[in-house]
This record gives sequence, structure tokens and C-alpha cells, in this order.
Amino acid sequence: MRIKLLLLTTILTGQFSFAQSGQPASQTNQPAKEDFQPASTNQRGKDYPQVNSERRVRARISAAQAQNVQLEINGTRFPMIKDSNGVWTGDSAPFDEGNHYYGLVIDGAQVSDPGSMYIFGSGAWRSSIEIPAADQDFYALKNVPHGRLCEINYFGKTSNTNRHCFVYTPPDYDKDVSKRYPVLYLQHGFNEGESGWGAQGHAGLIMDNLLAEGKARPFIIVMENGGISGTPGGRGPRPAGAPTNSPARGINFGAFEQILLQDAIPYIDANFRTIADQPHRAMAGLSMGGMQTRQITLAHLDTFSGIGLFSGGVVSTNDVNSAPGFREKVKVLFISCGSEERPQGILANHEALNAIGIRNTVYVSPNTAHEWQTWRRSFHEFAPLLFKD
Amino acid sequence: MRIKLLLLTTILTGQFSFAQSGQPASQTNQPAKEDFQPASTNQRGKDYPQVNSERRVRARISAAQAQNVQLEINGTRFPMIKDSNGVWTGDSAPFDEGNHYYGLVIDGAQVSDPGSMYIFGSGAWRSSIEIPAADQDFYALKNVPHGRLCEINYFGKTSNTNRHCFVYTPPDYDKDVSKRYPVLYLQHGFNEGESGWGAQGHAGLIMDNLLAEGKARPFIIVMENGGISGTPGGRGPRPAGAPTNSPARGINFGAFEQILLQDAIPYIDANFRTIADQPHRAMAGLSMGGMQTRQITLAHLDTFSGIGLFSGGVVSTNDVNSAPGFREKVKVLFISCGSEERPQGILANHEALNAIGIRNTVYVSPNTAHEWQTWRRSFHEFAPLLFKD
Repeated sequence: MRIKLLLLTTILTGQFSFAQSGQPASQTNQPAKEDFQPASTNQRGKDYPQVNSERRVRARISAAQAQNVQLEINGTRFPMIKDSNGVWTGDSAPFDEGNHYYGLVIDGAQVSDPGSMYIFGSGAWRSSIEIPAADQDFYALKNVPHGRLCEINYFGKTSNTNRHCFVYTPPDYDKDVSKRYPVLYLQHGFNEGESGWGAQGHAGLIMDNLLAEGKARPFIIVMENGGISGTPGGRGPRPAGAPTNSPARGINFGAFEQILLQDAIPYIDANFRTIADQPHRAMAGLSMGGMQTRQITLAHLDTFSGIGLFSGGVVSTNDVNSAPGFREKVKVLFISCGSEERPQGILANHEALNAIGIRNTVYVSPNTAHEWQTWRRSFHEFAPLLFKD
Repeated sequence: MRIKLLLLTTILTGQFSFAQSGQPASQTNQPAKEDFQPASTNQRGKDYPQVNSERRVRARISAAQAQNVQLEINGTRFPMIKDSNGVWTGDSAPFDEGNHYYGLVIDGAQVSDPGSMYIFGSGAWRSSIEIPAADQDFYALKNVPHGRLCEINYFGKTSNTNRHCFVYTPPDYDKDVSKRYPVLYLQHGFNEGESGWGAQGHAGLIMDNLLAEGKARPFIIVMENGGISGTPGGRGPRPAGAPTNSPARGINFGAFEQILLQDAIPYIDANFRTIADQPHRAMAGLSMGGMQTRQITLAHLDTFSGIGLFSGGVVSTNDVNSAPGFREKVKVLFISCGSEERPQGILANHEALNAIGIRNTVYVSPNTAHEWQTWRRSFHEFAPLLFKD
């Protein structure tokens, strides 16, 4: 409950528009180790930004007439210095392993770094940078059979809008067309959108790799927009190929509950080869998406048998006792957060659930905060638990 | 032939890194009509950039300390002026209807406009803006059954890399799993990538709308990267959800021919419910993709029965006479360009083909140049001709 309140406070004060990250104060002002390498998130042919073994970011941009250029990562600005050719370079403090949203501030203009690829996160399209992680193999692109990440447009009667989501189908989905699959509904966080799990979350690659190692059962993953605003822009045609999210600003859990249950699930069951029953349907989400998961699953235990909350509060003993049939109906209950997010709350909750005989899994991501590396790892731990018949 | 040489020259000199557009000189320096509206390509909640009824773009950005800010569209720069709050505003000359790549230049730094959504085009991820077109209904997002635009990772033995493409499957693809579909291989242009046709080209929406009106037969569309470089970045994991293209810089038509024939087509036929024969396989492309289409289809008339060249040269009477079996094997030959691209060449070629009894279709897009509006319209004209049994 404390965790939940903490997270809710964080949402309401907008504290995690940028994920927090651990910056060891002792390293912040020391000179950077000169082993920088171009980031994996760079646009092709771009040498900058770079990352070094201390997990510092070095950005560079040509801006001959500029007076002041800064590198901004997770809300913290770092100075950049101009050389005689008008090229600005600057280093950040060390950040956690994983993906971070960042940008440049050029004479007051907040812009994306033209050196990086762009994703949607923290309420806007922006540059992001990948800081190599010791465990990055689990979300690496490998020569294994790959599923598909499909962009879906469909009309939602409940919201009376054209809705937009992404659906991952496992490898071999079209090879045996008599086969049907369970479904996980996987939600993003506040100010994020439906492309987040597929892009910076690498959910598809994580599944591909788990399946190649025989560590998970194949299932479909549906990534909807947890806001209630429907199609972004709304002023006319929008690019069909790019994931063009709207930030989930209109937080109305009840409205999203209706959209998910009355629009999304029926559409998915009608248009994909799903096993359309409670034992083969789960829901999970990160941060706000975890809170939505908690509310929606507890109110619809005849619809969902698996529950995952990643940095999104807990299902408490009170929750269990207030939800009729929880013990029989819920097969997987998974709760996680980063070690820098006060994991005491979820660990205590885990023990309390154990004490009343509720099978549940708790996971604490080492050395990460309220950020994608926590959620990638959480999904990687959660997925193998699902749909064991 | 003249057209082909002209286009080839254009490629080699890099003239169409930005599409050309018609800017009536007489209107360039006149004050803009004050009926600007936010563009459909804006990020959600952003009021700028805007477009007016003269098809001018008005950009705006806050950059209090900047000395000089410009709006750059299709390689032309337009001045912006700072107000007392440090906000810069500037108008462009009129541009053609349709999608244009653009950016801002802030004290010498070339960056994307944080007001717009980002696509990949002209060799980089960048902002683009949609200028409303009189005929935009054919690529609008409507409440009709939608196909899926799927991101595909697969290993290509020929290129020995992880390859990345997009595949459009028609509506109802999963409803009748006994049904199999013809396939169109649809290629992008020089310095563009595999996401272009789905994003700024709106190929999926165009097909959805044609199918809803009963004007085309359902088919699968495969959009591969016509460069030979395989997966972009190549330094490690990359965002799985976002279309992360590499520019098609390594122009080696022969290498792409091998990739298409030996990697892509076998993968698609093995993993999608295709009708895997010549009568049900076509290829088309824009600009460089048209030239690749011409070369590859003429050399493999037992593989392809439909040919479409959009602003990409012609199949000449000489070509026809040099390709054994052309008359019997080619069912659709479609050649197009914009009215501002010297259409005399393709019109004369059309007559010459007619004179030797080769059935073919020519299309000239009104008031457009070497740009996406030409190619959207070309695809819209071409698709209904395909796969009529």
C-alpha cells in the first residue's frame, strides 16, 4: 500500500515523466574514462552519441552560431563545450544500464539528438540511448525464429474512435493454422504509449529469445493505449507505418476498462487465433499500466487468470480477500520493481501473501530504478510463468 | 530512356535526397494568408507546425538564446523571426500537396522539429509534414476493415545478416485460414528505407480503402530494404517496435536481386499464406525501387507477372523485345510519374508500347513532382490492376 501510494504520488506530481536513475555523486565530476563507443541506438552512420564503460553518455552536435548547448538525460542537464569548428561535445554523469530518454538543449530550444533513432516516450517522440547492460543478451536480436510485431487499426465502439495497438504473434504463427494461442494484454505507463513495449521494451525480442530456448510457451501479446483518447492527432490521416502514439494522459481507469473488455478483447478474439477463455488470458503492465492491471483483473477474475504488476504497486492480502474466487481463479500473480524503487514494500507483500497461502512471485531488478531495464527484466521473468496448462 | 537517364543522373548527383517541389516564384515573397491550421502530422497536443490554404508551412519554436533559426523544407531554407518571448516563427513558400521532409536549423544545428512526428526518409530519421491534398480521402484512416502492417525480422543467408522488412496482410487474413493470397513486392527509393511505404506512403491505408470499396483484390504487400546492408545499426540490440531503417546507400542491384529472390521470397512464401507462383507475384517500386523492379522483373519473368515503375524510368519496346516471353508472361505493366517530372518520356513510351501491341498503363500525377504524393497516387492507380484472374 505504501508502494502504491508512493507511485501514485509520483504519477500525480509528474516525477516520472523521466525515469529516475542512479548517479553516483562521487563520479559525476570526475573526467570520463576514454573508452567511448557509438550507441546501439544511433542512426546508421552516426558516430555520436557514444557511451563509455562507466555508463556515461557523450553527445556531439555541430552548431557554430550557438551560445549554449546542453545534453539533457532524465531531466538532468550536462554542459557541452564548443571547439574551434563550432562542434559541441559534452559528457553526462553515469546512468543505469538500459534505455534512457534524452535530448539536446540548443540556445534554449529542446530538441531530439539527430544522432539517435527516435521512439515515443515521456509524452513525446524523442531520442533515446541504450546503455549496454551486462544481461542484454536476453533482449538482443539473434538468429532465432522471430515473431511479428503488427500495427493494428480498428474501430472501438466504446470510445467511438479509430484505435491503434500493436500485436505480437509468435514465430510459426502462420505455419500451423489450426493452432490457437493464449493472449497477454501488456500495458505501458503514464505518458507513454502503445509502441513502448515493442520498441524500447523489446517485448518481441524477449519472447523470441525465450521461445528459442524453450523457456516460455508461445502466446500472443496485445499492446493497447491505456489512455482513453484513441487515435493520436485526430486531425486527419496519420502515418500508417510508424508507431504514432498518443501519450496516455487522460487517466480514466474505468474508461480504459470498458475499452479493453468491450472493444479490444472482442476484436483480438475475432481477428487472431486466440484461445478465448479465462485460463488463456492474462494482463500485465508497468507503472500506471500495473495499476490498471490490478484494478481491471481484480474486477474481472472470470476474464483473466494471470496478473503482472511491474513497478505498479501490489495485489495485497486485502485485495485477495475482497476478490471472490481469487484463490481458484488466479494462476499467476507476479509483482516486481527495481532495487532503487524501495523494494521493501513488494517483498513484505510477498511474505504476507505467502502467509495466507496465495502463490505469488516477487522480483527485484538489481541496480535499476523506475525505468525500462526494470520492466524488460520483469517481463523476461514473468513470461515463462504464464499459461502452464 | 531520356527519363531513365535523367533519373539516374538525379540519383548519382544526390538531387533527390529531398524531393523537388513546385514553388511558384510569384508567391514566395508575399505575405501568407492567415488561415493556418495545425498539421495532421503534428505530435499530439502540439499547435505547430501549421499549414495554410496556400500550402505554406508555418513553424514555431522557443529558443530564447538563439541568434538565427530557419525552417528548412526540401532543401530550401526560410527565415524565422524571434518575438519578445524568445519564440521563433517563420513561413515557407507554398509546397505541393502531400508529405514533405523538413527540419529546423538552430544556430547552425540541423535538427528535427519537436512539433512533428518522425519518420525515416532521405537518409535519416526526421520530421515530416503533411500538406492537405484535395484527394487525401483515398489514404485517410477510416472506419473500414483494416489490414495489418507487421514488422518482420528474419535471417538472410545471402546477405548473412538479420534482415528487417514490413509486411501488410489484408483484413480478414486470419478469419479464413484456408485462404491464400497473391504478393506484391513494393520497393522504396534511394536513401529511403523499408518503413517508407507503410508510414509516409500510407500503402496499408490505401489498400484498406480500395478493398472496402471493392476496387482491388486482397493481396499481401512486402516492403524490404533495397539496400544491401541488412539490419541497420549493427552494433547490438535495436528498438524492435519502431521501424528502424537503414538508408539504401549501398546501391548494388545485383546483390539486392539475390536477397529478394533467394532470401525474401522464400521466407515470405514459407511464413505467410501466399499463392507462390508467377501469376500471383508482382513487383513495383518508386524511383530507385522502380529501376530495381525493371531490372529484376525483366530478368525473372517466370517469377513476376506484374510490374510497376513509379518515377523510376520505363520498360521500353527494346526491353520488351529483349525479354523472351514478355508478351505472354507479363499481365500488368504500369508506368507513372509526377506532372512536374517531364512526363513526356513515359507518355511517348506508352504510345510506343501500344504500337507494338504491349498492353500497358501510364499514369501522370497532376501537379506533383518526385515526391510521396506522386507515389501514393501511383500505388492507388496500380493496385486495382493486379491479380485479376
